[in-house]
Amino acid sequence: MSEPEHTEATGVVTLVGAGPGDPDLLTVGAARALSRADVVLYDNLVCPEILDLAPRAEKINVGKLPFGEFTAQRAINALLVREGSLGRNVVRLKGGDPFLFGRGTEEVEALHHAGIPFRVIPGVSSLNGVLGAAGLAVTARGRNHGFAVFSGAGQTSNDEIRRWADSPGPVVVFMGVHRAADIAREFIAAGRSPHEPVTVVARGGSPREVIAETTLSALPDLVAESSDWTPAIIAIGIVREHAFAARPLDGTVAVVDGKPLDGELADLMRALGAQVARPAQNAVPHPLSREAPAPVEKENG
Amino acid sequence: MSEPEHTEATGVVTLVGAGPGDPDLLTVGAARALSRADVVLYDNLVCPEILDLAPRAEKINVGKLPFGEFTAQRAINALLVREGSLGRNVVRLKGGDPFLFGRGTEEVEALHHAGIPFRVIPGVSSLNGVLGAAGLAVTARGRNHGFAVFSGAGQTSNDEIRRWADSPGPVVVFMGVHRAADIAREFIAAGRSPHEPVTVVARGGSPREVIAETTLSALPDLVAESSDWTPAIIAIGIVREHAFAARPLDGTVAVVDGKPLDGELADLMRALGAQVARPAQNAVPHPLSREAPAPVEKENG
Repeated sequence: MSEPEHTEATGVVTLVGAGPGDPDLLTVGAARALSRADVVLYDNLVCPEILDLAPRAEKINVGKLPFGEFTAQRAINALLVREGSLGRNVVRLKGGDPFLFGRGTEEVEALHHAGIPFRVIPGVSSLNGVLGAAGLAVTARGRNHGFAVFSGAGQTSNDEIRRWADSPGPVVVFMGVHRAADIAREFIAAGRSPHEPVTVVARGGSPREVIAETTLSALPDLVAESSDWTPAIIAIGIVREHAFAARPLDGTVAVVDGKPLDGELADLMRALGAQVARPAQNAVPHPLSREAPAPVEKENG
Repeated sequence: MSEPEHTEATGVVTLVGAGPGDPDLLTVGAARALSRADVVLYDNLVCPEILDLAPRAEKINVGKLPFGEFTAQRAINALLVREGSLGRNVVRLKGGDPFLFGRGTEEVEALHHAGIPFRVIPGVSSLNGVLGAAGLAVTARGRNHGFAVFSGAGQTSNDEIRRWADSPGPVVVFMGVHRAADIAREFIAAGRSPHEPVTVVARGGSPREVIAETTLSALPDLVAESSDWTPAIIAIGIVREHAFAARPLDGTVAVVDGKPLDGELADLMRALGAQVARPAQNAVPHPLSREAPAPVEKENG
């Protein structure tokens, strides 16, 4: 068959929020889009079980593209446009949510300019997905009426950090581990107590999640070795709900063999506070596990 | 069979975030919890298609409980504890996310005190779910490094509103329609431009969603008849992405008969900007539709 110069079949590109990592936090719409995909472009932080939902798709890890003259984001945009132009069903699978530190705006703009139809399926953000699963509530009656969120990545100045510190409520920081010293200094300079509680959730949603409780003044020492703490969410002014920490199996990993991870026994163990996992020899390597090469801290909502 | 004084069968209570309304935005974990539930306690804002995923469960609309000596929240807590104590699999289904204006902390605390095992399955918050599906991005590269979120419900003072206005980024307001005059006044007093763009998304995720673009100074007049605009998300400093507004079917409702709403044709129409619906005679009444009795504006994350 010779290659047509034009084709009636225009593809659809679907930007999909994959959630924080736990396959249970994928949406029904995302699972359906994956099942129909011809090609999936995914980030480093998307876990293997989720990719298995697209059995017939070509899978491209765009976190590993060889970049030439383009920046990473421009190369991804170009690839989305190319695949859509070929009439394929394209899923762009992003950790968290596409529009909450997910850089989705740049991708839909590129698709619009190229005339490719697109959809966006929001996902569970790490904001409430990682924090909530760990027992941290961004709002609680009687404690706060709101919260602020900012990214510690590149361009956020220390002056801006101090302005976020002025918010009348808790502040959640994405991609902020390498800015821990700036954060502690600017928050204290803004008048927050050095003893204000801070909870750090590293590798949230992965089998190697770590939850650490500290204070503003002690935060920099805690995360001094920042590669051990990446990626992480830093929650300033939020502690774990007592009810979570008090569960009988809190902090333990329950290894089940021969039982489904989505079975009723596994659910009961989760309800008692355990994290349920397969034996190591059966486990799918998760991109956030400590053993894997340290992922670059990147924007994922 | 006589009623045992004690039973080995302790139930599990699962707090589930149902997302903003669109059944596609339910999580896989939520769907599984519903399929196993013996009883579902749900809010007014949860849509009927989602409840259909719990075919064998008793369903209790806790938005309609007759309250006596207890407040609504205390009555719900007591009901959760009672059902869990009976050894039943209980799903507490909450609009949005349980810990983002969802009052989930009060419920897990009550379960903990009663010794009932519980889980929390985070959901897609209206924050990114309603806004993202409508083409509003809470973050965009080159525009902002963060954002603030607050609730306009009851106890938030005008002084606090002015402090949220001081944030160096967009501000998203939940349950704020009835405070529109306070919001406009305090934001302008804090130094924000009266011309700053404001987007209001009312009844987001329902077939009767309305998206309105205005400015800070014109906001109070827009939502003067607040019952027409409830529930709503007010996004200050965020406009719809141009790529969404430019889609050929943007703002239209595509009615399909005899075709599945989750089919490929429906997905293509969504990718062209349409909202896909069943003909009126086949439609399930949605609790947020304009024709239904106006729901009370309430806390849903």
